[in-house]
Amino acid sequence: MSRTVQRIGVFDSGIGGLTVLKSLMELLPHTNMVYLGDCARLPYGTKSPKTIVHYSLQCSRFLASKDIDLLVVACNTASAHALGALEQELEIPVVGVIEAGARAVIDSGGRRVGVIGTPTTIRSGAYVRIMHEIEPDLEIISQACPLFVPLVEEGWFQDEITELVARRYLSGMIEARIDTLLLGCTHYPLLKGILGNIMGSEVQIIDSAFSIARVVEEIVGTPAKDLTHAEVVYYLSDLSPRFIDIGEVILGHEMKYVYDVDLCV
Amino acid sequence: MSRTVQRIGVFDSGIGGLTVLKSLMELLPHTNMVYLGDCARLPYGTKSPKTIVHYSLQCSRFLASKDIDLLVVACNTASAHALGALEQELEIPVVGVIEAGARAVIDSGGRRVGVIGTPTTIRSGAYVRIMHEIEPDLEIISQACPLFVPLVEEGWFQDEITELVARRYLSGMIEARIDTLLLGCTHYPLLKGILGNIMGSEVQIIDSAFSIARVVEEIVGTPAKDLTHAEVVYYLSDLSPRFIDIGEVILGHEMKYVYDVDLCV
Repeated sequence: MSRTVQRIGVFDSGIGGLTVLKSLMELLPHTNMVYLGDCARLPYGTKSPKTIVHYSLQCSRFLASKDIDLLVVACNTASAHALGALEQELEIPVVGVIEAGARAVIDSGGRRVGVIGTPTTIRSGAYVRIMHEIEPDLEIISQACPLFVPLVEEGWFQDEITELVARRYLSGMIEARIDTLLLGCTHYPLLKGILGNIMGSEVQIIDSAFSIARVVEEIVGTPAKDLTHAEVVYYLSDLSPRFIDIGEVILGHEMKYVYDVDLCV
Repeated sequence: MSRTVQRIGVFDSGIGGLTVLKSLMELLPHTNMVYLGDCARLPYGTKSPKTIVHYSLQCSRFLASKDIDLLVVACNTASAHALGALEQELEIPVVGVIEAGARAVIDSGGRRVGVIGTPTTIRSGAYVRIMHEIEPDLEIISQACPLFVPLVEEGWFQDEITELVARRYLSGMIEARIDTLLLGCTHYPLLKGILGNIMGSEVQIIDSAFSIARVVEEIVGTPAKDLTHAEVVYYLSDLSPRFIDIGEVILGHEMKYVYDVDLCV
């Protein structure tokens, strides 16, 4: 099913979702994008489901006011807890990063799967539930990695401390001899190097940021004939220079149009 | 100057401020306390001054509605950026953790002082400014330690990884041969063991949680004659079991009356 999509809205609890935006811009370079990072209230991953639904509805209402035709929930925690509420409220397609990542694992043919994410994402069991709905026999082990987001935000991507933390978090997965590791948080693609070293080349790493961009590409279908340069606009609920610095590292280019937004009014 | 204080309000961005509450309960066991942890939007330490002032005003309005006679700003980030705005808005005394910690350093006689805190607290320069107002000749070096809060919340108080992170953050202070280390974040008293090991016994460690409780004790003065058991009530803007678990570790006893509150309405 493909449809006319002029403008895609993407939201995340912060700037980690820029890994999703980056994949979308690569696959759909002629589609306009509006990104919303709820930096004022990040991280979502340690908060309760009730609060996450409340915040996600505020984010999606803001993006809906910007005339988007499709909503991408780049935040794993919001996908785990708020997708139903968002689908009920909005009249446009809503794509969640969890379903996309789970599908990518199934398509990869993995049989012993490790899932890593924030405490709330892992506690929700959402990845496991979706994968088991499709493939009930899949062996899956999960691990919350609460320090990965602050380590990425510290900029310690290739670092002995990050490697020690990762070895501790992943030791159960190494013992269980997984063949596939699913990165269930948008910040984690920045740790791919270290995670690959620890798990070894025989373990495939599935990046949910790339997976969701592929799902969106299928929905959007053939690009519009009008190949003008697309417009990408960023809104942050807390405009700190630090977020822009890290954001530009994630994107690999300048965040040109960045605006402040108050979601809590 | 001492005054009749029936009920003290304490707020923090999360549960770190419970180290302050704990010191207050030890020094003033017969005074009622209301604690507010804005867990729904923690941490404050990575956000912009504008957002921090906005959140702090919401927190203090909520506590004022609970009939407090004195407000303790247990959050270092809020003390650094919002104390003026809070004093202007409220008609009761407002005590900030930064002023109290700075005073304690001066009283201790330290001459080469190291200050550690969250990125926003350190960037504000508030500790340095207040200490230099009193003692312009003091040598002060500052260091932001963004990973300390998540490490404490992971429960890794005595841990080789936490020690490696601390050694990296403190290396400049060791080289500078400081004689006094000020813990400029309410989570950090839980790392006192590791920090003491790294700095050695010749460096005195000043805990701002204890310092602020002493300042409040001076204001409150002689305890009321009515020595009934005081009431301590907790409000959290996000009621997650995880916060209560960590909170009870910090307090060393049960959080009996805990209520959910929505500050963002």
